[in-house]
Order: sequence, then structure tokens, then C-alpha cells
Amino acid sequence: MKTIDFKWPLNIKSGSTHAGFKPDEQLDMCWVVSDSPASAAGVYTTNQFKAAPVQITKKTIELNHQLQAIIVNSGNANSFTGDEGIQNVYNSKQLVTNKLHLDDTLIGVASTGIIGKQLDMNTYQNGVDNLELSIDDIDAPEAIITTDTCSKKVCVELTLKDKPVTITGFSKGSGMIHPNMGTTLSFIVTDANIAGDDLQNLLSEDIVSTFNQITVDGCMSTNDMVLVMANGAAQNAKLVPDCDEYVEFAKAFKYVLETLAKKVAQDGEGANNFVEVNVNNAFDKQEANLVSKAIVGSNLVKSMIFGKEANWGRIVQAIGQTHAHVDPNHVAISLNGTEIVTNSVPISFTDDELKALFTDENIIIDVDLNVGNASGTAWGCDLTYKYVEINAAYEG
Amino acid sequence: MKTIDFKWPLNIKSGSTHAGFKPDEQLDMCWVVSDSPASAAGVYTTNQFKAAPVQITKKTIELNHQLQAIIVNSGNANSFTGDEGIQNVYNSKQLVTNKLHLDDTLIGVASTGIIGKQLDMNTYQNGVDNLELSIDDIDAPEAIITTDTCSKKVCVELTLKDKPVTITGFSKGSGMIHPNMGTTLSFIVTDANIAGDDLQNLLSEDIVSTFNQITVDGCMSTNDMVLVMANGAAQNAKLVPDCDEYVEFAKAFKYVLETLAKKVAQDGEGANNFVEVNVNNAFDKQEANLVSKAIVGSNLVKSMIFGKEANWGRIVQAIGQTHAHVDPNHVAISLNGTEIVTNSVPISFTDDELKALFTDENIIIDVDLNVGNASGTAWGCDLTYKYVEINAAYEG
Repeated sequence: MKTIDFKWPLNIKSGSTHAGFKPDEQLDMCWVVSDSPASAAGVYTTNQFKAAPVQITKKTIELNHQLQAIIVNSGNANSFTGDEGIQNVYNSKQLVTNKLHLDDTLIGVASTGIIGKQLDMNTYQNGVDNLELSIDDIDAPEAIITTDTCSKKVCVELTLKDKPVTITGFSKGSGMIHPNMGTTLSFIVTDANIAGDDLQNLLSEDIVSTFNQITVDGCMSTNDMVLVMANGAAQNAKLVPDCDEYVEFAKAFKYVLETLAKKVAQDGEGANNFVEVNVNNAFDKQEANLVSKAIVGSNLVKSMIFGKEANWGRIVQAIGQTHAHVDPNHVAISLNGTEIVTNSVPISFTDDELKALFTDENIIIDVDLNVGNASGTAWGCDLTYKYVEINAAYEG
Repeated sequence: MKTIDFKWPLNIKSGSTHAGFKPDEQLDMCWVVSDSPASAAGVYTTNQFKAAPVQITKKTIELNHQLQAIIVNSGNANSFTGDEGIQNVYNSKQLVTNKLHLDDTLIGVASTGIIGKQLDMNTYQNGVDNLELSIDDIDAPEAIITTDTCSKKVCVELTLKDKPVTITGFSKGSGMIHPNMGTTLSFIVTDANIAGDDLQNLLSEDIVSTFNQITVDGCMSTNDMVLVMANGAAQNAKLVPDCDEYVEFAKAFKYVLETLAKKVAQDGEGANNFVEVNVNNAFDKQEANLVSKAIVGSNLVKSMIFGKEANWGRIVQAIGQTHAHVDPNHVAISLNGTEIVTNSVPISFTDDELKALFTDENIIIDVDLNVGNASGTAWGCDLTYKYVEINAAYEG
């Protein structure tokens, strides 16, 4: 498996445009379309107020795990918009059907942006009218962002029994990031040949230790969704669980999910620092994930990283707030590779030595709980003035 | 019941001093002592890493629900300090015993400040040496604060069958405020005559809808504790559950707890605005409390209030993130008395009209869930640059 420049897999085309949801000619709409129906899988926000496109797309995929096109707009989330919002998703599908002559059960719809405003369907129609299909238009990652400072994308290539397979993924997300079972908006397309239910199992399993392990602000969006399409154009022998090629594909697929998840955390609203928390020797995997996410999500830990203070008591506080098994006398904590607490006792450093641990803009916190042998990792960012500024001003 | 100027109840004396835990002659130690053993009750943090004084004081009170003295230092939390920290609590008790000739099972010990540093017992001894006992020293509320911008105290007087009874309470807390079953450091003394177990029941019941309903930053301290002493000096007939006087006392007692809780939320680190969230017509009381606390604790809602943007989609997002019963089509939201969403549909306002809803520095959000008839309230504050600044710099 190797990372390559962003491109679409075989028999996948895309288009992007400015429909008018965002100001100033910014790209705010895109679609990604397979030449033929593709195996599909999705995971969705567990927020009880699921946005209209999440509700409908979930139903579409659960029908027979197939999709041929995904259409996405940014600038309006079509969330908390009642029956009219639902109708607008069906109307969106109809517009795509009319233009591409696809069955509407093969169309996935996603939206992101402000909550509680009806989608302007004239603008939407304008977007669909403008959208073209090309293997060369790779601007879809730009078209789905909102408060993001950059697009998030990744492309890997692997060879399965002489057949080159491409996996291409892109995500948006910067605030309201605290996914649970679902995630921020992410789309992955591949030309691999794999059944829809196997793709769903793979996604549902990997999401737990990738997107569900990032947090920017503890707030779970109403629109979170990850959709995957696999159109089989690579003509590899169909991937069967546990065969060597399946394992290889699964590894590459997880790499794509993890890379996108980390890119979202890295671009957390207002963030100066990307933070990775590894919890080792936890009671079980679930607790390792729980504790690492609790630490990376703590406002006090996040402020401490912004301030470059090795205020490790706050790490302890965040661990203890969870229900995970702990041994108060045997916790060890390292900051960027330097152990600062061992057997629950702080190691003596000068203030300057501690400050020096923060010189890298990637901060890695390792915690050893010494109660078992499970490990887990979570990713996030620091809490800055800028986060407050963005969210005090943003109308979304 | 009426609120009166801060004073100690009958047969309660206090003292405060600068021991040396905080710089610049700031008060950092106090005690509150009853002339005779008093009925006592406590609630404690549910953080798994309970600080040494929390562990020991919990044991002391559970012994026979009696206390005669409470001693508190600020500037060092004696938390995550291992066996030496526990021993230092016993040593603290011994110093009090030596000076006041009290049984050490009648002494409650509390600490607040930085986590993970051993208590300097020379400083502690210096403090105990300095402490005096007076009915006129009312500086204890000043002596227990850390990042607080002001002390939090309340005093009420009521008459129970011709006997005047005083309830005096004081609290500290500004950050790491997200209590659960326990709370920030708070102390309540009264001259009422009430059995220790009745006092405990009252406290345990009232804490759920008072201190457990405030949040500043979602971070639960290792040192949270509320202690109550009732010495009976008012000579009222012993309060028996459900008698008229008990009900009257309970009402005043809850008022004291709620007032202190709100004062802590109001002084949230860096806060510009005090926020109250009332959730009505919830499925049950527990869900009403859950949803109100979820809204008041959301970083996005808190940033929105700082920015004076009526970005109500974030309120919806916070509701849906909980597991409470909801009806997506019948949510109503009011901001400082003006309904802005009805039956889940936004009411049309100009931007200026919405901005005008934020002119008061107390922000009240009312949510109607329309799924039952239970109500609950939670209190918090906005998220400001100042919060980040304080916690980037504070070594605690």
C-alpha cells in the first residue's frame, strides 16, 4: 500500500460548483458518481435530531447496500427542517435522477452548514444544473468544507493479486466534532470489488477506533455521516472476509479512515496544536478508548496545551472522571516521549524543561494505567482564543 | 425565611489566616468550629482519584455523622499525593486536635489548589498556629478561593416555632466545575437542631438539583466536597422529617445550596454572562436535569452566548446529543422570555432583534420538550477568551 496524489478510482467521476449557498463564488456543491452501481456502506450520527439527508440516505443504503452517486452541499445543513426538509431531500434526488438518469435508490444525499434553515431549492437546482462529470475534477474536497481552514483528503493504492486498487477519501469538519458511531461528513470511494455487507462490517468496525476517537469540542453534529462506495472496477477477485487480499484491503481502508479522522482533528476550530493521546495497559479496549478520548476532550487539558504548561494534574482529573478501572498508585504519564509521572508520583523537572516538551506543534500524551493490557488512541487539538472567536461569530 | 448579612450561627466560631500556600499575604487557611459536636453531612466528588482530604473526611463523617470543626486550606489540593498525602491529612487533624483539644473523629479536612504537589506541613503548622477563633472573623469565604474573582457566601434566618435559626454557607469554585453527586468545595453551618442522618438525606437529595446542575467546563474536580454542620444551638425542637418545621428548614437549606451553586456558576472562569437553562415538559425529572445541563455545558452554546448570536441550532444539537425522550417536531425555545422556535420551526426575527435578546448579562434559555411534564434547571456561563487565558496560564 502506498499513498499517492489525490485522484478518483477507476470508473468514478466527480464535479463541483458554486451553487450559491456560500458567498463569493466559493465551491459549495459536488457529486461523486460511479459509472455503474457500487457496493455501499454508511455510518451516521447518533444525535437524536438527525438531519433530513442523514435520515433518508441511511434508509437508501440500508435498502440493499448500493449507491451510484453521492451529492453534497455545504452552507446549509438541512437539519431541524421538519417535513419540508425531508421533502427537499427527495426533490434533490429527483434533480439528480433527471440529470443522470439514475434510479433514486442509488443516490446518497448529504448537507452541512447552518442548522434550522430550509434549503433553497432554486439554489440547489442551480447547482445540479452546473455540475458536470469528469475524472479530472478533484475539487470535491473543497466543495464540502465550512469553517475548515483546509480540505482533508487522502488517496492510497494497493495491489490485490496483480490488480491495482485505489481508495480515495475526503472529509470535512472542524467544529461540532465529537462523533459517536457516525462521524463528521466523510466520503470514501474505491474501485475495489467487495460486497456491500462486507463493506458495511468493515466500516462499522473501523469507525470505532478512528472517527469515533476524535473530538474537537464535545459537540456531536446532527449531520455526521461517512459514506463509502466500492464499484469493483479494479476487477480484483471479490474480497472475502479473512482472505489475504481482504486483510490487505482492510488495512488500507483503515489507514484511509484514520488519516481522514486525524486531519479533521488537526484542523479543529482555532487549533494551534494537534494532540494524540495513547492509553496503554488499560483494563480493556473500550476503556482504553474511553480514557484517551476523555483526556483529549478535556477543556482544561486543551487549555493547558495551548498555554504550554505541563499541568499533568488535569490529565489525572480527566482519567478519574471516567468509570474506567484505575489504580491510583500506578499511573504513568509521558509528554512527547518524556516521562513526567511514574507510579503516580511526578518526576522533578524545572519549569524550562517542562516548557521545552511543548516545542513541537504535535503533542503526544502517553498514559500507562497499569491495570490490564489493552491500548487505545484518541486525537484532538488545543483550545484557543480562536475557537471561541470562530464560534462566537459563526452563524452555523 | 429571609436573607441576612453574613454571620456565623449560634455557637459557631471561625478564624482565617495566611499560612503561606498562596503568595502575597493572601488568606489561604481557615477553620469553622462549633462549641459542641454538631450533626454533620457530606457529599463528595465521584472522580475516581479522590483527593486525600476527601477520602479521609468522607470516612470521618460516615462514622457517626458528627463534626465539630472543619479546616480548609487553599493553594494546594493535596490530590494525587499517594500515601504521604493521606498521612498529611492525619497530621493536619493532629495539629487541630493539639490546639483545640478535640477528638480527631470530629475534624473535617478540605484542600483546594494545585493537584499533585505534597502539602508543605511546615506551612500547614504555621497556619494552624496563626488561626484563632472568633464570632467576628467572617473571612473564611475569602480564605478558600483560588481562581475565583469573588467569594461566594449566603446567610439566611428563619424562625422555627419561635426559635430563630441561622443557616450560613460559603463556597469556592470557578473552573473544573462539573460536579456529580459531590460538588465544588462548599461549607454550610447552622445552629438548627437536626439529626445527622436526616441532615445527610436532605443534602443528598438537594445536591442533585443544585450543585449537580452547574457546569463551567465539564471537568469534575478531584476535591469536590460539600460539608454541613448543624450544632443545635438554636434550641429548636429536633427537626423530624415531614413535620412543618422540617419542611420550612428544608426549603431554606435548599435555598442556601441553590444560591451558592448559582454564585459558583456566575463566577465561572472568564465568564461574562451567567446562563440559566430551564427545560420544561420533559419525560421525567432526570431527563429534564440531563438536558438542561447538556445545553448549559455545550461549548458551542457557550461560545454563541459570548458572541451574542441566537444560533439556536446549537441548542437543538445539544438536546439531541443526550438520550432523553424528544419529539423532533415539537420543540420550543425561548431566549430571555422571547420565543424564537415554536413547534421546531424558527420564528422570524431580524438580526438586530435577535442581538437585542442578549443585552442583559443574565441569559435565560427556556426549552419546552413537549413529551411529558417534568422540569429541570441548570446553571453555567459563557465560554470566553478569558477562560482559555486563565487555564493556559494557571498552574492548578
